[in-house]
Formats: sequence, C-alpha cells, structure tokens
Amino acid sequence: MSVSQRAQSSSKYDTPDAKARVAKAIEQLRPVFAERLSVGVSVREQHGRGEAFAQSYLPDAVIWPLSTAEVSQVVKVCNEWRVPVIAFGAGTSLEGHVSAPYGGICLDLARINRVLEVRADDGDCVVQPGITREELNAQLRDTGFYFPIDPGANASIGGMIATRASGTNTIRYGTIAQNVMALEVVLANGEIVRCGNRARKSSAGYDLVRLFTGSEGTLGIVTEATLRLHGRPEAVGSSICSFPDLRGAVDTVMELIQTGAPVSRLELLDELQVRACNAYSKLSLPEQPTLFMEFMGTEAAVTEQFERAVDIVKSHGAAGLEWAFDEQRRAALWKARHAAYFAARALRPAADCIVADVCVPISHLADCVAKARAQIDAEGLVAPILGHVGDGNFHVLFLIDPNSDDERARMDRVYDSMIETAHRLGGTCTGEHGIGMGKRDKLIAEFGSSVVDLMRRVKEAWDPNGILNPGKVFDL
Amino acid sequence: MSVSQRAQSSSKYDTPDAKARVAKAIEQLRPVFAERLSVGVSVREQHGRGEAFAQSYLPDAVIWPLSTAEVSQVVKVCNEWRVPVIAFGAGTSLEGHVSAPYGGICLDLARINRVLEVRADDGDCVVQPGITREELNAQLRDTGFYFPIDPGANASIGGMIATRASGTNTIRYGTIAQNVMALEVVLANGEIVRCGNRARKSSAGYDLVRLFTGSEGTLGIVTEATLRLHGRPEAVGSSICSFPDLRGAVDTVMELIQTGAPVSRLELLDELQVRACNAYSKLSLPEQPTLFMEFMGTEAAVTEQFERAVDIVKSHGAAGLEWAFDEQRRAALWKARHAAYFAARALRPAADCIVADVCVPISHLADCVAKARAQIDAEGLVAPILGHVGDGNFHVLFLIDPNSDDERARMDRVYDSMIETAHRLGGTCTGEHGIGMGKRDKLIAEFGSSVVDLMRRVKEAWDPNGILNPGKVFDL
Repeated sequence: MSVSQRAQSSSKYDTPDAKARVAKAIEQLRPVFAERLSVGVSVREQHGRGEAFAQSYLPDAVIWPLSTAEVSQVVKVCNEWRVPVIAFGAGTSLEGHVSAPYGGICLDLARINRVLEVRADDGDCVVQPGITREELNAQLRDTGFYFPIDPGANASIGGMIATRASGTNTIRYGTIAQNVMALEVVLANGEIVRCGNRARKSSAGYDLVRLFTGSEGTLGIVTEATLRLHGRPEAVGSSICSFPDLRGAVDTVMELIQTGAPVSRLELLDELQVRACNAYSKLSLPEQPTLFMEFMGTEAAVTEQFERAVDIVKSHGAAGLEWAFDEQRRAALWKARHAAYFAARALRPAADCIVADVCVPISHLADCVAKARAQIDAEGLVAPILGHVGDGNFHVLFLIDPNSDDERARMDRVYDSMIETAHRLGGTCTGEHGIGMGKRDKLIAEFGSSVVDLMRRVKEAWDPNGILNPGKVFDL
Repeated sequence: MSVSQRAQSSSKYDTPDAKARVAKAIEQLRPVFAERLSVGVSVREQHGRGEAFAQSYLPDAVIWPLSTAEVSQVVKVCNEWRVPVIAFGAGTSLEGHVSAPYGGICLDLARINRVLEVRADDGDCVVQPGITREELNAQLRDTGFYFPIDPGANASIGGMIATRASGTNTIRYGTIAQNVMALEVVLANGEIVRCGNRARKSSAGYDLVRLFTGSEGTLGIVTEATLRLHGRPEAVGSSICSFPDLRGAVDTVMELIQTGAPVSRLELLDELQVRACNAYSKLSLPEQPTLFMEFMGTEAAVTEQFERAVDIVKSHGAAGLEWAFDEQRRAALWKARHAAYFAARALRPAADCIVADVCVPISHLADCVAKARAQIDAEGLVAPILGHVGDGNFHVLFLIDPNSDDERARMDRVYDSMIETAHRLGGTCTGEHGIGMGKRDKLIAEFGSSVVDLMRRVKEAWDPNGILNPGKVFDL
C-alpha cells in the first residue's frame, strides 16, 4: 500500500463526521445496553491500553455485552455507522491490541465468561471468551482435566486466542493454536458463524480456526471456543539449578531439546532477574543464571527423565540442583519464576516496563541471549532477561524512565537489534505477544510487504469497512 | 453465491475462446520447456485423476518445471491468459484434487524434489515439494531424525501439505499442519513469497502457513517447505491383538485415549479387512476385529506403557496379544496393516475402490463404526473398515462394480449417512483426504454457506482470475 493510499484509508476515521457517526451509534445502542454502556472517562481510560504498552488511546464508549447476540447487535450497528469495534478481554496484552487509536466502541467481554460444557469423554470443553485461564482451571478442578496454556498473566481465553498466546507449557502442549478445536465468531457485518469441529483432525477446507487465532480481533470477535483439555499428569517433577554463566544455562537448554529430552517446561531467569526475585519474594537463590525444569508422566518415567537430564545439566557446570515431586515443594522451588514479572518491575517501581519478545531457532538461542545481555549492559539499561527457552523464546524486561527519551532511544537500539538478529537467524519478532500497534513495522520486516498485503487482502475481503480493531497488525 | 452467479463465473472457462487462450499459453511456454511440456493424450491421462477417484478430467498440457522460477513463469503466463493451473505431486490424492475439470496446465512437480538442507541442531529441514515422504526419510536415514507424518500412500510432501495430510502417527506427532514451519509459495500472479519461519512458535500476524496448508492448490503453489523433524525414538514397541467383536476393539481405543495412554499409533482393521490381509499377505491372523498399537520412548517407558495398556485391552476381551521391540518382528506383526489398502482392493480386483473418510469425537467412535458396518451389510456391499482410530478417524473401502449404478447408489446411501452422522456428532466429513471435487457439497453441509463464503472470499482476494486449481474445495 502506497503512502497516499494509506492516507486515504486512514481518512475514513479522520473525516469531520467521524465523531458524529460514533455519537449516532452510541445513541442507537444506549437504550439497549443502559448501564452496561459507559462513556465515562475513567472507564474509557481503563480500556484504552493493555499492560505494559506506553501509549493509551481511549474508545468513545465501553459496552459490556452478555451474549453472542448482543455482541452481534453492537457490531451490526458499528458496521452501519462505520465505527471501530475493539474486543477487550482481561486487558493483559502487551502490544497495544486493546487501544482505540481511531476511537470507537470497546466491547468488554468480561461478563460473557461461562464454561458452557465439559465433555470428559472427549477431553474438550466449550467456553465463552471472557473467562480467564485461572477461572477455567478452577472450574475444571474436579474433572481430572486442565487447560495447560499459560501465558503468565491471567489472560482471558478470548484474548489468548486473539494473540495466539503460549507461555511456559508450549514444549509439551503447543500454543493455544493447537488447542482450539472450534470457534463461534461474530463477523464484521454482525453475522454469527461457527468454524472447526470436535474431531481431533480435519481436512475440510481452509483452516479458518487457525486464521482467526492470532488475528487480534481484526477479522472477527470470538464469542465461543471449543478447547482441547489435557488429563492432569500422574506425576510432575520440578527442578531448579544455577549456572556459573548464561551460556552454560542456555547451552544446557539447547542440549536438552536437541537430545529430545521429554521436558514439559524449561524456563530461564538471568542473574539480574534472580536478584530481583530474591528481593521481591524474599528468597535466597544464588544470584546466577537459573534454569527451571519440569517433567511430567508416570512417577517412574519422570524419575528416568530427570536422571538423564541431570547428566546434561551437570556437564554444563550446574550447581544447587534441587528436585521435587511434592506439589507444595514444587511451588516453593518455582516461586521465583511465578513472580518474575512483578519482581522485575519492583527493581525500578517508577519505570515503564516494556517486555521484549523474540523467538529464534534453538541452535541460535545462546548467541542471541548473550548478545542481548551484552547490548543491554553496553547501553547501561536495567533489563532482566527471562524466557520460555525450551521454545527458543525469550523476553527482556526493559525498565525505562518514562521521562527519559534517551533511555527509550537506548532501549530501541537494543530491541531493534534483537529483532534484526532474530530475523537474520530465521526467527520471529514475536513468539507470543503479537503485533498489535507496537510491531507493525516489524511484521513487514519479517515477511516483506507482499506477504503482509496477503493478510491485508483477507482483512479487506472480510471487513470491507475496516471496523474491526483498526490499526492493529498493520497500519490502515 | 447464487446459482446465477455461479453459472456466470463458471462461464469463464466455457466461453468459445477458452481453448484458444489455453493454446496461446501453451504456444508461449513450449519454447521454454521444450520436451518438458507434453500435450500427449497418455501423459494427460496419467495426470487427469488421482488414486481412487472415479472421474478423470484431462489437462490440456503437462509441464515438468525444475525450479521455483519456472513454476512462477508458468503461473504468470497462465494468469495472463486466464488459464487454470493444477499442481500435481505423486497423484495419490483421493478426492479428485489433481483433476482438470476446466482444462488448463498441469504442473507436475516430481522433478523439483531435492532436500535442500537438514539442520540437525534445530531438528528441521528444507525440502522441495516433489519429494515423496519415503524418499525424504531415506535421505534422513543417517541423521537420527525422521519425518513421521505417514498418510499410507507414498505421497509427495507438497501434496501432503495441500491436503493437510495426517495418517497413522497423528496421535503422537499431529498432522502435517503442526509440522510445517515455513513455506515458499508461488501466488496466482506468479509472485514468489515466503511465510512462516524457523522459530518453534510465532504470533506474527495471520497464520498464512496454516492457511496455505490444506488449501488444495487453490491459493498458491508450494515450492519449498521447512519441516519439523523428530528424533527417532530410542525404543518402539509394537503390538497386535484381536477382539471377539468390533465394539470391544473400539471401546478399547476409547478407553486408551480417554485414560491418556501415551500410545503413538492405534490402528483398527475390521473382520473383513483382516480376511483380506490374510489372503493378500499370506498371513493367518484370527479373522476378527484387530487392533494394532505402537508405543515409543525409552525401553523402560515403553514397557511400562504397554503393561498398562494390556490391562485395558484384556478387559475388553482381547486375545492373541502379541508384542515386539525388535524391528523385524515389529514389521512382521504390522504387515497386515501396511498392505491393507492393496489387500482390500484384491478382494474384488475389477471393482472401483472408493475410500470413505470421516472423523468423529472419540466418544462417538464405537457407535459410528458399528452403524457404518451395519449399513454396509444391510446394503449388501463389499467394504472393509480400517482406521486411525486413535484420532476418531476411520475409513470404509467401498469396492464397487464400476458398471453398477445400483451399487453406487447403495454406497452413496451409506456414505451420506456416515457423514450426516459425523456432522451430527460434532465430527468432520474428512479427517485427512480433503474436499477436492468429491466433497464440495459436504463442506457446505459441515460449516454452512456463510463459512464457505469466507473461504471463497479469501480465494477471490488472492486469485481474482480463479486460475489456481478451479473447481476444488468449492464449486466455481
């Protein structure tokens, strides 16, 4: 898309009548939703940004629908008036997905949050999009099943689908994309459709479930999802160990993955992150790069897996190798990992926290992490590193003075370089956080404009008025 | 799309000048490809149908390109002249995917068949589309890796991607969709693009790799694929056992899956299929419903898994439980399974073999298989059943007198009923064979016309002239 074309389509929202159209849409919806429609500034501010994204863009109104039919009704009215619609889950996204740069109506799905069905015979369930993963797992507690996709934050299932979330369990269970079987979606014209099915596989036509998954609310609004559940493992063994240097830790990861060790979680905290965790969670871990491992299966299998891992771990100089089967003891071992984000923030409480996210082929992980660490230090920034390293995915938590353009520029240098390096080595600019507003230029850098144009043509074919979460994934 | 619209777009290929345009395209391409372009009838007949699909539609010419650039060149010329292009791999597809109902040019990719790279450090490889899975695994033999997706036939990797193939290893490794990391694709205008990357996961924009996978050559022609490889398991244990009735066998499958047994293959042959295998492969298996199981892991883990499975298997009345670790012995045990398709054909050598393919939630598998068997018998047809039952996927091999409309009508009654039942129970009209020409109406039955229209709009946005494999997935 040329610059002039872009200016033209952007003008859809900048015309003098744009605000008048939003007002018309709100006027039409207000009698339907009454106190479930708010134009109050504080409510709009709560919905104008996700977690950890600096800019805030307020919607013109927030609506809390209670059903798919109500979502459809709002979308129909918005389509009629050419007004943006932004779906909002738990607000934990990190790339500005829920911001409203062109105003419009925010659909807060928090009250559409029931588990509609759990089918133990097939190990699947049907949920509404507003339920959070913790609430879902709480409701599954007595079934023997759980939904293992765990992006860290207590995100909503709808939001996780929108960003193609993953997290700590990916080595074993895949991302959410491999665990969504079917979707009910409200399209841009308000039509309600269902795609996918409950079979374990299908070759029936284009895979629209995977196309909606990760489309960040730009192709449709998910109003129901059929999820694959997993049986709770008989036994879980957790382990923690520390390494004299970062390379030893990451080389261990590479060797574990390359030898096909059936590890289910493999998490890294660097030295600075461990220091932050010790301070925040009152622990006394050795302030060294630390690896958290988890194995699942029968007790015999887990023990066998662990014993094999020990040989690899020790050969890279690990010390303080601890190990537990017991749930309470495991939680204690992993305490540092679970609170890592808040511990990092506490290193510099007044700072903005920008969470960088890249994912690279496992063979390049050690080099990429080491290079990022060196650049962070050279720029004099405060930025711990942690990661779901078993996938080649790592995060830098940049703690940046919000009033310092200079610090932000130094961060940008490091982050741009991390992404360039990832691209050069066959990796991606985002393992799990998505594009949102923050990485639209990086998406083009990753695939080239022809591929991004293919995505855009799908968007235009399905949402000709461009009302669904405009300005995300690509520029208007 | 209304009937009149359909008639209109179909007329693109029926206009008096359609043949003239094909002739122009061939004339333009002949000097480039010389003896690698053929208009001979016997060559065109070899390319006019896949396996097991009754109708044959001949392309106007067959071209054997040697490179991505040559594929692009052909597609460009075809796009210019509005001539259909049909990609052809090994010709093993079962739903008429490679037929040319509107004529045009068949691109036989068999000579673009090299392994371009094997990256042992990351467990991935880059291959060209014409390589077959057996050839790929032969070339991987010394690397410690293999590509486990096994649809039975020695299909080409490009064809497997096009139909979203799976087969016997799906329980453990997923379908091919979960094992394709990146694609190079020639688009309808001849442009060459790359999507996906070598990271283990990514949230970068719409998932075009999964959209191309299963699109049956209607959105682009895959010219290169990056595949995830898997380490050869340390130990494999294979087992076979027979059951007094079909329900006992399928109930065993359901219980194994529902208890989360880490089985890697789980295959069923019914009584008639076993009889066919005994005759064809000179075996003496009990002529009863028979289950083939396989476990992978360390020897200790496999033994533990097998011992647990035995309890379940025996509780359903299994007899003749045999078990082997040794490769030669395993091959002997599974011999009946491997030759099942040809054994079935040999039951009635002059018959057409139509391979029905449905996939249902595992909890409904026993009912669906039993119902199919009863209907086959009630209609007096010869049709063994076999299946990748661990996924809920089963096949009926209908052996039909090609000259008997009556037999075909009886088959249609059974097959239509199988699909209706699958749909009613949350399953799919195709677990792994795809839509092709054979199931276009079933795709609409599965999702409704709105969802099929979403697919069609992608097709129209990416291939406005409709040259890529027209008449597949949906009617024109």
